[in-house]
Amino acid sequence: MNFFPAVDPARKSASTYYDESLQLVELAEELGFAHVRTGEHYGSACGGYSPDPVVFLTAAAAQTRRIRLVAGVAVSPFAHPVQIAARLALLDNLSHGRLDAGFVHGNPRSGLFGVPAPDSAAPVEETVEACIALWSGEEVRFEGDVYRFGPVTGFPLPCQRPHPPVFVEGAADAGSCARAGARGRHLQLSPVPGGGRQAQRMTGAYRAAWRTAGHRGEGRVQIAYTCYLGADREVALAAARAGEDHCARLTAGAGTGAGTGAFRADVRRPLPAASGATAHDHDGYGYGGGYDFDRALAGHQVLAGTPDDVRAQIETIRAWYGSGSCLSLQFNPGHLPYGRAVRAMELFAAEVAPAFTHSPAPAPASAGTAGAAAAGTAGGGPAVASAAAA
Amino acid sequence: MNFFPAVDPARKSASTYYDESLQLVELAEELGFAHVRTGEHYGSACGGYSPDPVVFLTAAAAQTRRIRLVAGVAVSPFAHPVQIAARLALLDNLSHGRLDAGFVHGNPRSGLFGVPAPDSAAPVEETVEACIALWSGEEVRFEGDVYRFGPVTGFPLPCQRPHPPVFVEGAADAGSCARAGARGRHLQLSPVPGGGRQAQRMTGAYRAAWRTAGHRGEGRVQIAYTCYLGADREVALAAARAGEDHCARLTAGAGTGAGTGAFRADVRRPLPAASGATAHDHDGYGYGGGYDFDRALAGHQVLAGTPDDVRAQIETIRAWYGSGSCLSLQFNPGHLPYGRAVRAMELFAAEVAPAFTHSPAPAPASAGTAGAAAAGTAGGGPAVASAAAA
Repeated sequence: MNFFPAVDPARKSASTYYDESLQLVELAEELGFAHVRTGEHYGSACGGYSPDPVVFLTAAAAQTRRIRLVAGVAVSPFAHPVQIAARLALLDNLSHGRLDAGFVHGNPRSGLFGVPAPDSAAPVEETVEACIALWSGEEVRFEGDVYRFGPVTGFPLPCQRPHPPVFVEGAADAGSCARAGARGRHLQLSPVPGGGRQAQRMTGAYRAAWRTAGHRGEGRVQIAYTCYLGADREVALAAARAGEDHCARLTAGAGTGAGTGAFRADVRRPLPAASGATAHDHDGYGYGGGYDFDRALAGHQVLAGTPDDVRAQIETIRAWYGSGSCLSLQFNPGHLPYGRAVRAMELFAAEVAPAFTHSPAPAPASAGTAGAAAAGTAGGGPAVASAAAA
Repeated sequence: MNFFPAVDPARKSASTYYDESLQLVELAEELGFAHVRTGEHYGSACGGYSPDPVVFLTAAAAQTRRIRLVAGVAVSPFAHPVQIAARLALLDNLSHGRLDAGFVHGNPRSGLFGVPAPDSAAPVEETVEACIALWSGEEVRFEGDVYRFGPVTGFPLPCQRPHPPVFVEGAADAGSCARAGARGRHLQLSPVPGGGRQAQRMTGAYRAAWRTAGHRGEGRVQIAYTCYLGADREVALAAARAGEDHCARLTAGAGTGAGTGAFRADVRRPLPAASGATAHDHDGYGYGGGYDFDRALAGHQVLAGTPDDVRAQIETIRAWYGSGSCLSLQFNPGHLPYGRAVRAMELFAAEVAPAFTHSPAPAPASAGTAGAAAAGTAGGGPAVASAAAA
């Protein structure tokens, strides 16, 4: 389950949003969902209720016992690897080893922090390398292109040894996915603009690079989708259209307003199939200008409809991304009423997930193994890993 | 209650430390303590288990309903006001308005972040001003000496309106305390090296400046102390001596080792009465070289002994700091066994706190009022605000 709050405070207060979201986290655990995921965003209604995934997931950890916690931490000019490593390790301990550590390229809009954003992917990989070094417990002297620090010893050590599973965000091109695979990172994707062929190119390049580099097991691919599910197709599609239009409007405001300073660290909104936007198009979350709900639905950029509809949509997506991939689904987009999110999750667990459930494997709890998130933690809950697409 | 983990990982794992600390938080709420407080430290056994007060206090909030949460956030080169404001507001919402927002001057040691520390107190005050502006919900353009950013609108808004109570750390001189009072900030202090006369000068200057500036109510003064309490004086003093010596050794290692890179953001260790060290002496936590337990005890830099002893010690401290002041007590320093911390807290609540309990005032829940932390939240719990010294 995936939380991206595109919420306008005039219509839902922050505390209501958090209270509802944490109730949904409890429900997700009860229903057997494999993970809860959120990212890092500042300064606008596009994500602004989620400035800190580590804090939100700490609250989520406190009321769950099994579900994995997937943090999309932004690498930005105001996040140092020593801090990031320590904060992630803190959450890993507080949750007794349930962290999946995601690293995302932060792109502060002009004016937000008053300094330019790092303009390459180098800081993400350097930050990951530095965190892994700090998580060793050894004294670290780090000499990167961007960061130079030490000697310093990381505190605290993470609970998972040698370290929590590491995810990085793949851009919508095969090259970035291959680089992630070569380094042995798990992969987070948004629905790709090029549809099935593009998805197959990206995940193919990723898995080939993973194997070529000799990493154990299989790299995990996590794809973020928004899901509007209901027993009545017309009602579900109307909610989907309204919700997506709301997000498009909010995004347009954040993108074109006079410097609202939105900071997006984590693309999780579906991208229009033919807009030419990439997963790193930061002016529109994929919604800018050309967003067309019907085209997005037809192009499998968003899940919407009845359980039968959504099962068929996921079948298609599964064929694109292959085995070892998993969906990260948002059930409470925008202003969708809480009760409707609850019903959608219950419907998903009852009528969609069983078609895709895989048996839990014999539980390797640490990094580097495909399916570890679901399999390694299924012991305490139902065997339904409902967000698994393969 | 105050958490400063001077814990060596070879003797207590991080997850054990957090599990124990969160059990102590639950106990603190049961016993009627007014607040839980912690700070931000990196890269050594001196505080390294506490890299992020917001995260730890989020976990504390999840298992309590009444107790206040006092976060000592470090202002450093890698913390931007937009992030700090957002993270504190997130915790304020998750705790339904229980945050006291403390801002501390961060002093990374050489090598920790690979960049020099800010060398003045200016960033702290600028960060506080920027956060208060961002918490307004208005669009902010900020033009400070250190930070220039905007236009940006803060997300989320804090739960407490107009904003959570703000504390800043006072250095051990009357001038810094007067500046905090003039600005209407609440004050966090460590035991001052100059004893009673110095404490009276500092708090006198603080309160006079507060009144002169026309702020409503009375500024709150929170003083951090370590407390070794037991029914048997010899046992308590032996534990105190061992605990303080342990901290002095750890600190010496962090301070003189070849760049272990300790980052201390929050002085909470007692300073020796005659060492000449200030509250901003970052090479020793007040323990460096000249630390002498007997002198520290005689000079009221640490609390230790039987309930009778500690009551008398607090009587003295109360006379120094005056009404409106409150103690923030650490009961689990260093490697002290969990069970002993529990017994010390229970003993404190039963036999020390009642001597200093004040009746809850009629509950103003927002900033700027002396005693609001205890009084504003006492409704749901016992009337014992056991850490109140006045």
